[in-house]
Amino acid sequence: MYQVVTILFNGFETLDVFGPVEILGRLNEEFHVNLYSMEGGIIKSSQDVPVHTRPLSQINLENYILMIPGGIGTRELVSDEIFLKHLKNFSINAEYILTICTGSILLAKTGLLDGKKATTNKRAFAWTEHFPEVKWVREARWVRDGNIYTSSGVSAGMDMALGFVADQLGYDVAKRQSIEIEYDWKEDPSWDPFSRIY
Amino acid sequence: MYQVVTILFNGFETLDVFGPVEILGRLNEEFHVNLYSMEGGIIKSSQDVPVHTRPLSQINLENYILMIPGGIGTRELVSDEIFLKHLKNFSINAEYILTICTGSILLAKTGLLDGKKATTNKRAFAWTEHFPEVKWVREARWVRDGNIYTSSGVSAGMDMALGFVADQLGYDVAKRQSIEIEYDWKEDPSWDPFSRIY
Repeated sequence: MYQVVTILFNGFETLDVFGPVEILGRLNEEFHVNLYSMEGGIIKSSQDVPVHTRPLSQINLENYILMIPGGIGTRELVSDEIFLKHLKNFSINAEYILTICTGSILLAKTGLLDGKKATTNKRAFAWTEHFPEVKWVREARWVRDGNIYTSSGVSAGMDMALGFVADQLGYDVAKRQSIEIEYDWKEDPSWDPFSRIY
Repeated sequence: MYQVVTILFNGFETLDVFGPVEILGRLNEEFHVNLYSMEGGIIKSSQDVPVHTRPLSQINLENYILMIPGGIGTRELVSDEIFLKHLKNFSINAEYILTICTGSILLAKTGLLDGKKATTNKRAFAWTEHFPEVKWVREARWVRDGNIYTSSGVSAGMDMALGFVADQLGYDVAKRQSIEIEYDWKEDPSWDPFSRIY
């Protein structure tokens, strides 16, 4: 059983978080999602959803997957040295790291993506130019490099989460999940029509 | 500006709610989502997401869209006469009603779907047999009948929400939203491979 440590902040993108949470949370013998923020308490998404979170100080540093969403809130956090220091520590200790959308920019800022392949939101792709040490992949629904998974924008987090489930528990388990939520899973991580729009 | 009155209960399905919330909530000049439950306070989804809600008594009965998700919690609510009485009142006064997954079963139980076309989760389709007055459509991603939209299971709520946006604000607005969240919108409400699986 993995704990899925999900880092929230005001202005996180709603679906970045709750798409993957839907998929991992259904597999409740394998994963349990906990939502954290710097200070704990109520955190609001960009779409004004108030979610109850625990403070980062309560994270149990054992056997966990770190999940980092994107959203407008990342624009401020990318300059928040205290937050980034915490994020780096939690990232180093994680078994796996999953980022969605501009969550990969936050992870890049810790330096832990240097030399690794990664992707991000296609509308925000210009942001990647600030991190030339990362091997950014423009055309990708999601990218895996070792224990780090990064996804493209918002809804891509669901496809990545299913890909992660396939890697952990086998393709059939992931496929069954996708059918149960009636989702047309993009199984091929290189599927990315959106990379050609922007 | 419409308020999107979203009715939550313990055991709601996470993505049923937050898929449509992502789509409607991004259009923040047109829609504002508020989350309600019978008593207010923290409500947990089936995937254990704790969300802060307002009590039903605080619903402002003006110019609102009612959103009713599904999830395991509906199994109990479908026999909860007090909840159903409230749901019926809020449904009668709504400009539009959007249900996701087994949310349509709750609405059927109020009698307000009698004589109307509707759909629901394909895995739970047998449940529709208890409501013979409803014109259930098996093969449909979502169904519109007048001011009532019902969707198929879980992720189908996103396609329905985009269809609703298209009806309200035009196809181009909906399409742009789908691209911004990098979502492969199923634009055709009759697209439904899942109806042939169960």
